[in-house]
Amino acid sequence: MNHALTLPDECTQESFLHRYQMVRSKSLDICKYIEIEDYAVQPMADVSPPKWHLGHTTWFFEELLLVRFYPGYQRFHAQYSALFNSYYKSLGTHTLQANRGNLSRPTVDQIIEYRSYVDVSLVRFISEHTLTDEMKFLIEAGLHHEQQHQELLYMDVKFILASNIIDTQYAVQPLQAAPEPIHGWSEFAQGLYQIGHDAEGFAYDNEKPAHQYYLYPFAISQTLATNGEFLAFIKDHGYTKPEYWLSQGWDWVNQQHIQQPLYWSCRDGEWYECTLYGLIPLDLNRPLVHISYFEANAFANWKKLRLPTEQELEVFLNQTSLTAEFAHTTLLHPNNAQNMYGEVWCWTSSQYSAYPRFKTFDGILNEYNGKFMCNQFVLRGGCVATPDHHYRHSYRNFYQPQQRWMFSGIRLAKDIV
Amino acid sequence: MNHALTLPDECTQESFLHRYQMVRSKSLDICKYIEIEDYAVQPMADVSPPKWHLGHTTWFFEELLLVRFYPGYQRFHAQYSALFNSYYKSLGTHTLQANRGNLSRPTVDQIIEYRSYVDVSLVRFISEHTLTDEMKFLIEAGLHHEQQHQELLYMDVKFILASNIIDTQYAVQPLQAAPEPIHGWSEFAQGLYQIGHDAEGFAYDNEKPAHQYYLYPFAISQTLATNGEFLAFIKDHGYTKPEYWLSQGWDWVNQQHIQQPLYWSCRDGEWYECTLYGLIPLDLNRPLVHISYFEANAFANWKKLRLPTEQELEVFLNQTSLTAEFAHTTLLHPNNAQNMYGEVWCWTSSQYSAYPRFKTFDGILNEYNGKFMCNQFVLRGGCVATPDHHYRHSYRNFYQPQQRWMFSGIRLAKDIV
Amino acid sequence: MNHALTLPDECTQESFLHRYQMVRSKSLDICKYIEIEDYAVQPMADVSPPKWHLGHTTWFFEELLLVRFYPGYQRFHAQYSALFNSYYKSLGTHTLQANRGNLSRPTVDQIIEYRSYVDVSLVRFISEHTLTDEMKFLIEAGLHHEQQHQELLYMDVKFILASNIIDTQYAVQPLQAAPEPIHGWSEFAQGLYQIGHDAEGFAYDNEKPAHQYYLYPFAISQTLATNGEFLAFIKDHGYTKPEYWLSQGWDWVNQQHIQQPLYWSCRDGEWYECTLYGLIPLDLNRPLVHISYFEANAFANWKKLRLPTEQELEVFLNQTSLTAEFAHTTLLHPNNAQNMYGEVWCWTSSQYSAYPRFKTFDGILNEYNGKFMCNQFVLRGGCVATPDHHYRHSYRNFYQPQQRWMFSGIRLAKDIV
Amino acid sequence: MNHALTLPDECTQESFLHRYQMVRSKSLDICKYIEIEDYAVQPMADVSPPKWHLGHTTWFFEELLLVRFYPGYQRFHAQYSALFNSYYKSLGTHTLQANRGNLSRPTVDQIIEYRSYVDVSLVRFISEHTLTDEMKFLIEAGLHHEQQHQELLYMDVKFILASNIIDTQYAVQPLQAAPEPIHGWSEFAQGLYQIGHDAEGFAYDNEKPAHQYYLYPFAISQTLATNGEFLAFIKDHGYTKPEYWLSQGWDWVNQQHIQQPLYWSCRDGEWYECTLYGLIPLDLNRPLVHISYFEANAFANWKKLRLPTEQELEVFLNQTSLTAEFAHTTLLHPNNAQNMYGEVWCWTSSQYSAYPRFKTFDGILNEYNGKFMCNQFVLRGGCVATPDHHYRHSYRNFYQPQQRWMFSGIRLAKDIV
Repeated sequence: MNHALTLPDECTQESFLHRYQMVRSKSLDICKYIEIEDYAVQPMADVSPPKWHLGHTTWFFEELLLVRFYPGYQRFHAQYSALFNSYYKSLGTHTLQANRGNLSRPTVDQIIEYRSYVDVSLVRFISEHTLTDEMKFLIEAGLHHEQQHQELLYMDVKFILASNIIDTQYAVQPLQAAPEPIHGWSEFAQGLYQIGHDAEGFAYDNEKPAHQYYLYPFAISQTLATNGEFLAFIKDHGYTKPEYWLSQGWDWVNQQHIQQPLYWSCRDGEWYECTLYGLIPLDLNRPLVHISYFEANAFANWKKLRLPTEQELEVFLNQTSLTAEFAHTTLLHPNNAQNMYGEVWCWTSSQYSAYPRFKTFDGILNEYNGKFMCNQFVLRGGCVATPDHHYRHSYRNFYQPQQRWMFSGIRLAKDIV
Repeated sequence: MNHALTLPDECTQESFLHRYQMVRSKSLDICKYIEIEDYAVQPMADVSPPKWHLGHTTWFFEELLLVRFYPGYQRFHAQYSALFNSYYKSLGTHTLQANRGNLSRPTVDQIIEYRSYVDVSLVRFISEHTLTDEMKFLIEAGLHHEQQHQELLYMDVKFILASNIIDTQYAVQPLQAAPEPIHGWSEFAQGLYQIGHDAEGFAYDNEKPAHQYYLYPFAISQTLATNGEFLAFIKDHGYTKPEYWLSQGWDWVNQQHIQQPLYWSCRDGEWYECTLYGLIPLDLNRPLVHISYFEANAFANWKKLRLPTEQELEVFLNQTSLTAEFAHTTLLHPNNAQNMYGEVWCWTSSQYSAYPRFKTFDGILNEYNGKFMCNQFVLRGGCVATPDHHYRHSYRNFYQPQQRWMFSGIRLAKDIV
Repeated sequence: MNHALTLPDECTQESFLHRYQMVRSKSLDICKYIEIEDYAVQPMADVSPPKWHLGHTTWFFEELLLVRFYPGYQRFHAQYSALFNSYYKSLGTHTLQANRGNLSRPTVDQIIEYRSYVDVSLVRFISEHTLTDEMKFLIEAGLHHEQQHQELLYMDVKFILASNIIDTQYAVQPLQAAPEPIHGWSEFAQGLYQIGHDAEGFAYDNEKPAHQYYLYPFAISQTLATNGEFLAFIKDHGYTKPEYWLSQGWDWVNQQHIQQPLYWSCRDGEWYECTLYGLIPLDLNRPLVHISYFEANAFANWKKLRLPTEQELEVFLNQTSLTAEFAHTTLLHPNNAQNMYGEVWCWTSSQYSAYPRFKTFDGILNEYNGKFMCNQFVLRGGCVATPDHHYRHSYRNFYQPQQRWMFSGIRLAKDIV
Repeated sequence: MNHALTLPDECTQESFLHRYQMVRSKSLDICKYIEIEDYAVQPMADVSPPKWHLGHTTWFFEELLLVRFYPGYQRFHAQYSALFNSYYKSLGTHTLQANRGNLSRPTVDQIIEYRSYVDVSLVRFISEHTLTDEMKFLIEAGLHHEQQHQELLYMDVKFILASNIIDTQYAVQPLQAAPEPIHGWSEFAQGLYQIGHDAEGFAYDNEKPAHQYYLYPFAISQTLATNGEFLAFIKDHGYTKPEYWLSQGWDWVNQQHIQQPLYWSCRDGEWYECTLYGLIPLDLNRPLVHISYFEANAFANWKKLRLPTEQELEVFLNQTSLTAEFAHTTLLHPNNAQNMYGEVWCWTSSQYSAYPRFKTFDGILNEYNGKFMCNQFVLRGGCVATPDHHYRHSYRNFYQPQQRWMFSGIRLAKDIV
């Protein structure tokens, strides 16, 4: 089996139980600071109501593990299977994504009860059974799946709060001033590089197999693009000069009347940014965040530079090994343009496609990644909302070129001789 | 002033205070049986989240009375003015109607606090001041306005609950079986009839002035159209025969794939109706409800009869005087096709337009009715969701021909010699 | 039969033949001044390509007469029946209206050949047979139907030519200056008036039956609203003041960015009007034309006057009997605001609905009028594009409130004591 | 200058004049078999009216050469500049693409006159001047641009004729039966391959620079996918099984009700294909054509094979050198699945993006290719509608994944060890 090989040896019952409880409780923690009303709404189609995330991640464990492997297991509620399926055609019908915000029921309390019911059952299941490779893989995948939704929870909660007309705030503590970035370039020579996941531990199918890739000499910026740099682009009328824009990007800018990054606003000549810390004055040293591929590409053109390919960015990231510092337990906004990863997902010029000899996960999770390889661009490097123990440098995030509600930013590249 | 004349003498401070408190508390009573999540969603553009209704009806008293007439009054919240304005252009900006369900804040608790704040202020204002005719008129109008929203609350709560995938119920007590209707016709002779409001007491501008209208001999059915009759239309393939339908109705049926009234469904050959009592088997004797003008018109054509004009229906209704029986304190679904009024709003063939010499309300409420006189049809007779002390036989309700989420039904008419 | 009664006695074979040939040749005459390319395009959904009009009016005679009554008749082309059906569900499938401009075939030459083929057949049919009442009625209806399409041809040719970026002109002769109008009011007393068609000669089902209607004292302006008056409305910021507009009208103005009548434009501070005579400077004395109901209603509100009801306007028109002067053989733009009729179709405040005891035409033409009685307003009085021998004072034209490509204008009314 | 390098030495005045006249006359030749009405319509947004192609290709020479370099040159018509600009923002305003079919003017005759005027001027210009490298480049680019539009003319004429309800035919001679294909695989070893244009002669900027690319062992089918193979996919319910489809493809299939390739239809159980030879029975040996990327990808999944990358397909094509046989003077439909190129454009799994160190053309043509590198997939190999002397194996065609009106087909690939 394709997925069995990727499992580390230490996936014992105990380690699973511990990780399971840690990861599952984190989802509820994220929601501690919002109101019941915030759990239910869907101000744009890409956003899901937080209560849907809480139900859907639970559904994953119920449908892919308990229903299939736990003899005598009774579903918590007969209608939740269709309600909390996101897009798995092989697992029956699912509710249209854009309709999630139309459903007031089940209530948040009922979904929390659903979580408890499934958690108790799964803990009992893990404790009582010898797990097969497939089960271990599915639990591991379910935890990574839940972590992806934790990042989505931050993104969606931010969008939901910011969609209100009255002011809102998620975190009450203040956000410190950002340090001034020091610009520099990391240079890389021509040649064959290894790309993709080749280590122990969990990885998604789309990161594999590791393979050779030929690169020409390039340099990557040691700093992320900052608010200050992007403000200069705006002041140079970057949004109204077609020469910087992709054809579809130009149409998007004009049809949607785009004039600044998603959460920016200008009041009486002063610029502000809506963050999980509330509306705050724009800090020019802070990493730029919440921009589309179209904007990233136009900005790079204006700078007479370019976006890196995903292979180039992976080579750059591989210079550093991951440390515990990735843990952003309290930081909810990018604040250091000098960090190599873990601040903002960086747009690459690579459209999301299969690595040579790519195989989808076997079995029930074969719909996880491959079917989205169309009209999306790859982003690399993790962000402040990415949970601990989830990210790898080979991680391929992907979004459509007009999307901006994720923590997306820019790290520039250039050709060298 | 146009509106001053319509005020009854007994509008004293005390009667106002009593009525004010009765009407205002009723809005909260309606919401007693729903969950916080139900207050926040907007599953279609016509529906408003219940918490918006609670805020908007309060806004009316704050903006039209307290802000203008109560010296030293401080608004509860600076941003509520735009947030809870529905469509009054003269009162500043307002939130797009279709966006109401995107706003998670203010919370239900905050809105209830807003209601209390305004209620305390208004009660103090009434108690401390000698009310001018304009103030009396605006309070009276505000109470009728709130009652209109109480009916909307029932309609919207019903739609919100029914939009869920999992089963929901508003009222827990059972709904009794409907009596079998006895068919008959009331006949009326040719001649000039008086139409419109000519009595004491509050009435909307659109019901006035009373005027002469020439009618040809006609008869009105003594029973409302029933579920059984409409089921016969369906079984005779009424939805697929273009000869019964208006041109726009035929397009609507085909584009929206309409095959039955709004809340009907057929499972395993059995028909059900979604009501505030939950999903119940279709009772063939019960009045048909929740249909569009297009369906009402097609049904009348299929019956080789016609819908009445609004003048004909008013003449029919004027046979009976209003009684206390209009109080439907517990009944939340039409159940007696024999009742002359108060069951379902009956579609008329009259497009909503001005009576001869019509004048809009003076002043701030001149946007109340006149600006909607376009592409709407009049409905008459009140329904089970209409509050007590709100309805008159001259009452002109109006909706677009494709709308169906109000309690709309059919009373047929025909020409006689 | 309903329609048989409306036929005048003199509908002899000869008179039919003569009228048939006169009317039919006029359609081709209208197209004499356009190019082949102009026949094929459809720059908006309401407009039909001229070649479609030529085919559709021919289809009427082929399908309703020749196919049904002429033994041995062979259709010109098997696929034309679906192609040239406009909306008659009882006559089989029809091409979606908005797709007409996608069809390059049949060519104009083929359609002209089709016309000849049907004309020869119909002339032979009339000459060889004794016509029944039904046949006479259908020929008469077919000729009036063709005349309606002649007016549409002028409207559609105008829109097609004006949609081009390069300048175009239909008529080459110059348009004379308009006389200055002399304002005045015609007053009418309260009472019962007869409304509707009660004379000999052809009339549509929607004009009948003649009936009593009670009117309150009113006055009608003796002049049409002029370009000059409407320019004053624009200069007074009429398009940006919501208080003048219907709610749907205000949405329309803002969503469509409407700032002037359909064919007006302002270049370097000078106003121009696109006409069938080409682009000409705006003559302030000329009757205003090509406005929507929304604009007409807003203009009337701005004037503190109102639009007349259709009954009031019919009473006004009945003061004059029709004369031969209706013949506008060469005039293709309204030019005399003093004329009582035949300049522009005047919007009324009456939504299009059935007269008391209205019956649709019997048989195959029962889809002609009744199924459009929804969301349309009535216009009265004929226009410069209306063919001779087609108009009556009881004629009820009707359009949707946002439509403006017909020759629509304004004659104001007011209440008097 | 970037483009100067790509010009072959033999670009003399004479060779230019000859090629210019050959290429320009071919555009009119393609239109010889259509009617005036066919030149004017635009049955979908992607299609342009043929008369627009004739004007736009002429505009290229007028605006990019004559206006800029020919002293004293007078434009043929002041308004053609905006009218016939396709998308070049640097060359001023342009007409919205979807509106082209709304413009009846200029007429075909006027456009042919425009062509003559520009041709005479350009021939005189070439004859009288010593051409700079930039001029030579622009003429060469203009001719290749015109050849691209010649292929579009075939595509658009086919779509226009097929959109009619009545039967149409472009070519009158019959299409011969296709030979039965012999299946086989061409195998390629792992290693670095050179990709991109490195030869003399014209090439687009997107084909350069030539560069090293690492490939893993692969095999390419020696035959194109045939109608017969795709019919087997349909009969195995391929269109209704989500497991074969990309997520966006599945939405597209369901929203657009896609059930077969663009020009296929099934009547009474027999399959037909609409071609430029008219509607003909489906020949199972003929290459499949007019499918979307979504369908190509689903078909490959169903076959348990995959689409090649564009690099793999270029390596495959480079086995053969181009011959004069590419000239398809009379063949207007793919007919030999055994041909290596020149039958159908083959979808690759490569999303259209920049080669390493890609530079756009210098100057005025820098908008030619780069700004479309988003949400498009590359196709390779040329088709029957591709003009002689236009195609190279390095040629990168690109379309959106749902588009199908180009001559697109499938050549499958697989991994080997």
